[in-house]
Amino acid sequence: VRRSRTTERRFVSDAAVPLIAFLSDYGYGDEFVGVCHAVIARRCPRARVIDITHGVRRHDVIGGSLALCAAIPYMSASVLLAVVDPGVGGARRAVALRCAQGASLVGPDNGLLAAATHALGGVQEAVEISRSAERLQPVSATFHGRDVFAPVAAALADGAALRELGEPLDARTLVALELPRALVLDGRLRAHALTVDAFGNIALDATLEDALAAGLTEGGGCMLVRGDVRHPSRFVRTFSDVADGELLLYLDANERLAVALNGGSAAARLACSPGEELAIERSA
Amino acid sequence: VRRSRTTERRFVSDAAVPLIAFLSDYGYGDEFVGVCHAVIARRCPRARVIDITHGVRRHDVIGGSLALCAAIPYMSASVLLAVVDPGVGGARRAVALRCAQGASLVGPDNGLLAAATHALGGVQEAVEISRSAERLQPVSATFHGRDVFAPVAAALADGAALRELGEPLDARTLVALELPRALVLDGRLRAHALTVDAFGNIALDATLEDALAAGLTEGGGCMLVRGDVRHPSRFVRTFSDVADGELLLYLDANERLAVALNGGSAAARLACSPGEELAIERSA
Amino acid sequence: VRRSRTTERRFVSDAAVPLIAFLSDYGYGDEFVGVCHAVIARRCPRARVIDITHGVRRHDVIGGSLALCAAIPYMSASVLLAVVDPGVGGARRAVALRCAQGASLVGPDNGLLAAATHALGGVQEAVEISRSAERLQPVSATFHGRDVFAPVAAALADGAALRELGEPLDARTLVALELPRALVLDGRLRAHALTVDAFGNIALDATLEDALAAGLTEGGGCMLVRGDVRHPSRFVRTFSDVADGELLLYLDANERLAVALNGGSAAARLACSPGEELAIERSA
Repeated sequence: VRRSRTTERRFVSDAAVPLIAFLSDYGYGDEFVGVCHAVIARRCPRARVIDITHGVRRHDVIGGSLALCAAIPYMSASVLLAVVDPGVGGARRAVALRCAQGASLVGPDNGLLAAATHALGGVQEAVEISRSAERLQPVSATFHGRDVFAPVAAALADGAALRELGEPLDARTLVALELPRALVLDGRLRAHALTVDAFGNIALDATLEDALAAGLTEGGGCMLVRGDVRHPSRFVRTFSDVADGELLLYLDANERLAVALNGGSAAARLACSPGEELAIERSA
Repeated sequence: VRRSRTTERRFVSDAAVPLIAFLSDYGYGDEFVGVCHAVIARRCPRARVIDITHGVRRHDVIGGSLALCAAIPYMSASVLLAVVDPGVGGARRAVALRCAQGASLVGPDNGLLAAATHALGGVQEAVEISRSAERLQPVSATFHGRDVFAPVAAALADGAALRELGEPLDARTLVALELPRALVLDGRLRAHALTVDAFGNIALDATLEDALAAGLTEGGGCMLVRGDVRHPSRFVRTFSDVADGELLLYLDANERLAVALNGGSAAARLACSPGEELAIERSA
Repeated sequence: VRRSRTTERRFVSDAAVPLIAFLSDYGYGDEFVGVCHAVIARRCPRARVIDITHGVRRHDVIGGSLALCAAIPYMSASVLLAVVDPGVGGARRAVALRCAQGASLVGPDNGLLAAATHALGGVQEAVEISRSAERLQPVSATFHGRDVFAPVAAALADGAALRELGEPLDARTLVALELPRALVLDGRLRAHALTVDAFGNIALDATLEDALAAGLTEGGGCMLVRGDVRHPSRFVRTFSDVADGELLLYLDANERLAVALNGGSAAARLACSPGEELAIERSA
């Protein structure tokens, strides 16, 4: 029974127990996530909710987008509900999207959903839901997770047709996500930190191909250059391939090039945060 | 299908899948929440638990009470389990309450449940559960969430009658919650911070009526006065109605007057914590 | 209906809704926990997952082990999935174990599971699962929770036989956990901090018997000695047995000797972290 994650991307809408995956930057200190769960449970009691995470950094649309994409290959959810929404109550649209692979996405139209729609085969149908018949009235100006997004996601899980949940919109007008992009110049890989996880591991906007193009070899030495400081490291498979307290370059679980510190935090050692540049050179 | 949150307060006790809403200050770093879930699953395997939040500040009875009340209008849970319990093991009573709207509340009798009982139409029946037949013995002195409250909540979800879960008590003797109360004096609104959420938004003990009584107008300017420092602001609808980095006064999603900083933390800017005073004046 | 926690240790494998208990040090800021939930939901959609906690301190195998053991007496889960795995991708084995009381354990073979297996009556059958047919391929080097442990746990919940999930291994070769051990010398109890919870309460590697052996009496005075500093305290039942701001020695909810500060953090007051020594003497 070989279970490749690539071949098993299924988004089956199980009518008996529909699955909603939920991600936000609401955090765990307030009742926001619990209230959205309650709203879903009332609109579609048989739905099951999997929380991808609610620990996305406040208003970090890129971070939320990447966490969503990291989960998608493993999700059989028929509805993905994602809320990182600094523009709530303002001019940004609220949308629900049906993708080629059968899954639906619900969230703000601020780029958060863009990469996920690509991973799901592209948008087939899109509606604007700010005035959806499913919304909870009066709609607050600051908590559309509760009043707009959760009710629409629950309605989709309950089998409602997308077209009945809002006004049609042209999918080509959806907001795109601008991500940094690594490049190789003169044998040097100029990458950027995309995310830093709780362990201090830094995921870069670069792939194995980029590393090879910069002349790096698996098992070989490399230099991590952060501003004026050069940190010697090695391009290896996993943490324990270097000594405790040493930096490593590796392919992370999402097949991104990444930097870690065995037994510590690479982000602290390199003073590197999401969005910042990190260059990598081959060394002896 | 108009779904007003006001008209749909239902607390249906679904016999097939009873719903328990759970709130505490146990945090996420320890096994306390998971152990309570396990206790519930063993006593009433078919119950479903929605976690409102477990991130209430340690021993913050007011904060827990407000989070509970913020969730209630959206909850169809038949049982609400709330544990913020600095007096655990001491003289405070442990109680289970049945409210007019059909929901039951379980928790310590320290004021935590008081506002929720009002929101649910008042207490119809109350029992003291410290020596409930449902408790897990030996009862520890410091973890009544596990040994007393979770088992009783699960028994209620399972259909047990309240009167069989403890000793009757007079609901008029239940501990009340003392909340600060804003007042308008000489055209100045003297309010207090009730809660600060993870975004740094400050909810005040004041309503739209208070703001109007102080002469504020929607869209108009105001001055936020914190100690000796005066912060210019505006009374608007949502974050993006002011420029990035500016303070706003608005009605939050629970219809409380609140202060936020677009793109930042108002609590940090104003150096304002729960319980502290914040005055608001009309300005040009 | 007397429900002793001792007599009700049941690990019933409910075929309709199998229960998986899940603990890790993945934290809540990333998508790791949600992805594991998704993997489980896809392999065994009818399984229910109870999260014991994912807030174990990074790489704290002892802390994870103790949290797991604190939950076990209350769990009816048929599968326990535990991942605190600093050696992921390296030489450490990945294992699934069937215990005498019927429950199965899945996780890294680094000592994390050792105390739990004792609590569950010892290991009856053990397999190495790094190359399990259930694993998700390609297996990443750094996220075996997703690629190895969660799929195997889900397969067990689904009724798979342990022997079909990996290669047999000799349970006597499983890695043991080295815990500190309190001792009483010249009437002085030399204990160590095992864990510090979110309230700042310090659980020690000592029991009631140790306290009595050191001459302590319930209700009597004691001296907590941390380095050169002596902190007067009392051996009491619960927090409110001492004045606000005072230290207490007590038996915690897991029947360990513990130190707390009524209304504050004992760990902060005593500057005491897990693994560090704390001596206790009788006083007048």
